[in-house]
Amino acid sequence: MVGIIMGSQSDLPIMEQAANFLKSLEIPYELTVVSAHRTPERMFDYAKTAQERGLKVIIAGAGGAAHLPGMVASCTTLPVIGVPILSSNSIDGWDSVLSILQMPGGIPVATVALNGALNAGILAAKILGSGNEEVAEKLQQYQDSLKDKVLRTVDDIKNQHPNHFDK
Amino acid sequence: MVGIIMGSQSDLPIMEQAANFLKSLEIPYELTVVSAHRTPERMFDYAKTAQERGLKVIIAGAGGAAHLPGMVASCTTLPVIGVPILSSNSIDGWDSVLSILQMPGGIPVATVALNGALNAGILAAKILGSGNEEVAEKLQQYQDSLKDKVLRTVDDIKNQHPNHFDK
Amino acid sequence: MVGIIMGSQSDLPIMEQAANFLKSLEIPYELTVVSAHRTPERMFDYAKTAQERGLKVIIAGAGGAAHLPGMVASCTTLPVIGVPILSSNSIDGWDSVLSILQMPGGIPVATVALNGALNAGILAAKILGSGNEEVAEKLQQYQDSLKDKVLRTVDDIKNQHPNHFDK
Amino acid sequence: MVGIIMGSQSDLPIMEQAANFLKSLEIPYELTVVSAHRTPERMFDYAKTAQERGLKVIIAGAGGAAHLPGMVASCTTLPVIGVPILSSNSIDGWDSVLSILQMPGGIPVATVALNGALNAGILAAKILGSGNEEVAEKLQQYQDSLKDKVLRTVDDIKNQHPNHFDK
Amino acid sequence: MVGIIMGSQSDLPIMEQAANFLKSLEIPYELTVVSAHRTPERMFDYAKTAQERGLKVIIAGAGGAAHLPGMVASCTTLPVIGVPILSSNSIDGWDSVLSILQMPGGIPVATVALNGALNAGILAAKILGSGNEEVAEKLQQYQDSLKDKVLRTVDDIKNQHPNHFDK
Amino acid sequence: MVGIIMGSQSDLPIMEQAANFLKSLEIPYELTVVSAHRTPERMFDYAKTAQERGLKVIIAGAGGAAHLPGMVASCTTLPVIGVPILSSNSIDGWDSVLSILQMPGGIPVATVALNGALNAGILAAKILGSGNEEVAEKLQQYQDSLKDKVLRTVDDIKNQHPNHFDK
Amino acid sequence: MVGIIMGSQSDLPIMEQAANFLKSLEIPYELTVVSAHRTPERMFDYAKTAQERGLKVIIAGAGGAAHLPGMVASCTTLPVIGVPILSSNSIDGWDSVLSILQMPGGIPVATVALNGALNAGILAAKILGSGNEEVAEKLQQYQDSLKDKVLRTVDDIKNQHPNHFDK
Amino acid sequence: MVGIIMGSQSDLPIMEQAANFLKSLEIPYELTVVSAHRTPERMFDYAKTAQERGLKVIIAGAGGAAHLPGMVASCTTLPVIGVPILSSNSIDGWDSVLSILQMPGGIPVATVALNGALNAGILAAKILGSGNEEVAEKLQQYQDSLKDKVLRTVDDIKNQHPNHFDK
Repeated sequence: MVGIIMGSQSDLPIMEQAANFLKSLEIPYELTVVSAHRTPERMFDYAKTAQERGLKVIIAGAGGAAHLPGMVASCTTLPVIGVPILSSNSIDGWDSVLSILQMPGGIPVATVALNGALNAGILAAKILGSGNEEVAEKLQQYQDSLKDKVLRTVDDIKNQHPNHFDK
Repeated sequence: MVGIIMGSQSDLPIMEQAANFLKSLEIPYELTVVSAHRTPERMFDYAKTAQERGLKVIIAGAGGAAHLPGMVASCTTLPVIGVPILSSNSIDGWDSVLSILQMPGGIPVATVALNGALNAGILAAKILGSGNEEVAEKLQQYQDSLKDKVLRTVDDIKNQHPNHFDK
Repeated sequence: MVGIIMGSQSDLPIMEQAANFLKSLEIPYELTVVSAHRTPERMFDYAKTAQERGLKVIIAGAGGAAHLPGMVASCTTLPVIGVPILSSNSIDGWDSVLSILQMPGGIPVATVALNGALNAGILAAKILGSGNEEVAEKLQQYQDSLKDKVLRTVDDIKNQHPNHFDK
Repeated sequence: MVGIIMGSQSDLPIMEQAANFLKSLEIPYELTVVSAHRTPERMFDYAKTAQERGLKVIIAGAGGAAHLPGMVASCTTLPVIGVPILSSNSIDGWDSVLSILQMPGGIPVATVALNGALNAGILAAKILGSGNEEVAEKLQQYQDSLKDKVLRTVDDIKNQHPNHFDK
Repeated sequence: MVGIIMGSQSDLPIMEQAANFLKSLEIPYELTVVSAHRTPERMFDYAKTAQERGLKVIIAGAGGAAHLPGMVASCTTLPVIGVPILSSNSIDGWDSVLSILQMPGGIPVATVALNGALNAGILAAKILGSGNEEVAEKLQQYQDSLKDKVLRTVDDIKNQHPNHFDK
Repeated sequence: MVGIIMGSQSDLPIMEQAANFLKSLEIPYELTVVSAHRTPERMFDYAKTAQERGLKVIIAGAGGAAHLPGMVASCTTLPVIGVPILSSNSIDGWDSVLSILQMPGGIPVATVALNGALNAGILAAKILGSGNEEVAEKLQQYQDSLKDKVLRTVDDIKNQHPNHFDK
Repeated sequence: MVGIIMGSQSDLPIMEQAANFLKSLEIPYELTVVSAHRTPERMFDYAKTAQERGLKVIIAGAGGAAHLPGMVASCTTLPVIGVPILSSNSIDGWDSVLSILQMPGGIPVATVALNGALNAGILAAKILGSGNEEVAEKLQQYQDSLKDKVLRTVDDIKNQHPNHFDK
Repeated sequence: MVGIIMGSQSDLPIMEQAANFLKSLEIPYELTVVSAHRTPERMFDYAKTAQERGLKVIIAGAGGAAHLPGMVASCTTLPVIGVPILSSNSIDGWDSVLSILQMPGGIPVATVALNGALNAGILAAKILGSGNEEVAEKLQQYQDSLKDKVLRTVDDIKNQHPNHFDK
């Protein structure tokens, strides 16, 4: 249901975070490399056949002059989530952030934070969950688990700094 | 089905672009002002009751230290689209872009371009359309209309610069 | 008298600098983790009960799209000091700096430098000291100690570069 | 009780917003021009006599390489609030923001947003109010009035966009 | 011999500067609108047939998340010159500059200054002139004319400021 | 046929990437150090005699306030490719990028990405190839090889993430 | 004694501020246009003959990729003051600031603020005054006059805001 | 004849480069620590007595919100050279660069590159040399030595890349 693509194999350690989140929610996904600049035909083919292959959302990660998310979005009506990736020789990530975020009117890309592939996975699930109660429920459990993790750190810190709020 | 909120009435001229797009696709929406900083309880209430009121997507626009999209996202499992708005005394829009985009792992906001409320409306429709063929079809028509507009400008320019590609 | 909160346990090594300064001046404080995005209810509760629990100042540190200081400020009349923290995947700290600094008119946050938790502690003491002579005196001693430290480095350097100003 | 100073008369239209807020809360203030670079002795004199003249807080606004807030802070134990001002020939305000915000450890300046003199006034009141119930109460009324203003715009917008949340 | 394309008709006033320079050197060109995002098939078709249509160089201008120059470069072995254009809602032009400049290894775009369409035209002529003496000679004349223009301003200024270098 | 110059020997590890690419295509080149600031006469001499020595394109790399590419371009009608280099004490590369990119009207420099010497080599080949079928063919083979490399990574990833597009 | 040069006649309104300051101190100067890119020979000639023509300091202003100050500095042992100028199509002035400021080790340029030609004139006088008591005295008078101007605005403001420091 | 000061002992490894250059030219200097924020009285005293102690130029280095160079400049008619230093917790050096460079009209600071203490030393020598032929001659020798160093690297590289310009 979710297609995860990236411009280069070097993006894999980041982009797997999206895959792992979807796996944890038992949402099916496919994951591959599609380069806008080195394999433009493959990119077009991927984007144009995405819907008929049963995809509901596409997550596309890329670094530098990151054209993959925007170009895929121009060839499909599916929502496309863009993940700016901090690659070597990037200018602190600004290039990929702006190349993905600042799309012209008509062709949106749902941009997440620099290296934010985990959030891209969660956002894909939220999109699926907006029409699917089971997914929505799992997302609620996930958000609750985040809260629980914070509360456990509260207890940790209480021991070191005993005189605080949660007495 | 889509909730459109903004931090201040001064954001309305931008945010109405989202509303107008949804109206053109006959997608129901509600539109109001919810300020994270001046009406925090209202913001919490809005976010927590969004799903039960039947919303499927929330679009939130804000300028400066723009906390509205991220805070709403923290209180719902619905997908939240953030629109950074270039307000007066903004530092060229960087503040609202970064305050919305750079959400921590766990709580994504689907960020669009600075003042990109039109794209927020389209993205909301894409999210709905990913599970709704009628909306998907209308989106395809919209993307085709963008193409047609470009092709008409091609003809305009051919008259001024006759010696070109599309003869 | 001073509440020190942070968005994540990973902020603790920075934020402890505020705590240690207050401890050195024998100003009571509480320190805990409160996440705007993962524990929004806890944040609201913390902010709303701060005054009645006897707090006079709140120090809030956060990284990335740092909403904690501003959101806390929106729920209390206490002065809130914001500490932008350079977290991983931050865009050089600009995100947390701007998310905390650029608050809209009506809801100020007293922002200090990136990772400036020590200064946040000092500022909290200055705020308390503005109505408390004992604290003001200790602050004067602290400022004098800074001066003394500089003068000792002057002596160190004089030995290496003998031909200078302070002969 | 509050000293408001600025580096140049051209900063007055911005800095008067701090004065007007304090006036509205009946908090006494003094307001004058003190230039760190053109009148350094006056600046030192101002800062060193501030406490004995009865000031509790100092608000200092400056543009460009804005040294006034930091230099004043180095000569007093009073809390100093810095207002970065967007002056002509500024590089989009970054110079004054960073010159005020990025103070070294030991000498904090409570920085507010670019041109954020209103928030500086409110912050000064919050500092005074942390030890003064009457001021705290007025601040609560002010925060409530902000909320009321938002709610009135909600009603305005409801007429234009009838199908929304607050029916 | 030179193809000039742009992402939107609104780029025409800038991009005509390239056309006008080529016209002044009697270098044939074609000029049209090709949108990477709104007419992706047209873009591919344009790029892939460019060489066989007799083009030697392509100049591509675009604003915001400017993908046109890089995508065209990925589909041809012709040199592609990219012109970042300062469009409305751009973040000061950084988005188009970085989207065009920061191409990944393998697919270069010869980037010129923001709104630098005149320089794109000159660069196209330099590329043609590197294998064509007639064009090279005209370019030399153009560079000489720039020098002459400067020298005339020298004379102008000498009258206002008589006591200078060129006596 | 291609001159490769750099401002300092420390730029050699980056700039050799251009040389290596040209060598792989059997395009003759010369490579040396020419400093705009430390050897201005040598720079002028290099630029002015470039064409008569048989050069068709010049690649110039420099860091910091990188004046070499622009100054060389001002003394020749040959196309000049500029490579911004991230040197020590650079401000994240912005200085060299802007010093090379933002040339005034009349004197273009074909700028590539930060540290983009490989792309400079490819661009030089594209410029030569635009009038030389043999080079153009080799470039096509190179672009095909990029594509093949991507497709091989696709196979690699398929084994790790079996359920994807390329089944 | 002071040479004032600029890259383009459009810089004259800014650069005349340097001339006017020198005139007010009766320091002789020459003022002309010297373009690094359009008249490189003239630039070299200017720089190399500067000392023998009796110049003691050179002030050079330029916008965009501003190479004039640095290139002049590379051809003379005289101190060179660089004035970054905010020209049209500049990226907010960053290009000229960084092109002038970030000179490599060995060839300094004394950089002043964006459009800071007045300060360049004052700095030239300070350089001359460091070996000339008459000039130093005039500079002291100038600094005193700045102070007097501030004190007069103090009086102005006292009438509007009577309750202040300078009673 | 030259005063070298810095805001903190941690700046010494950078600032010694200025001292070492002056030593190599046999120009007397003094070197010490003067903190604008921690020892404001010492800073005033240093600046006000500089001229009578026989100083002709002051070099001041500082990081972060770097007020030392500008404040010293406000208290003396001597030329002041500012060295922005990249300190820990700096935002990539932008804070110190802008705090030193963007001085208001009336009080110039001759700013050099980030960490550019070597250039500050050379600039100080250039200022002294503008009225002193012996120093000017040594500077010429230094500039010649830079050229010689470049030419030696040319020979090094010729061995690795034999087919080049300097045969």
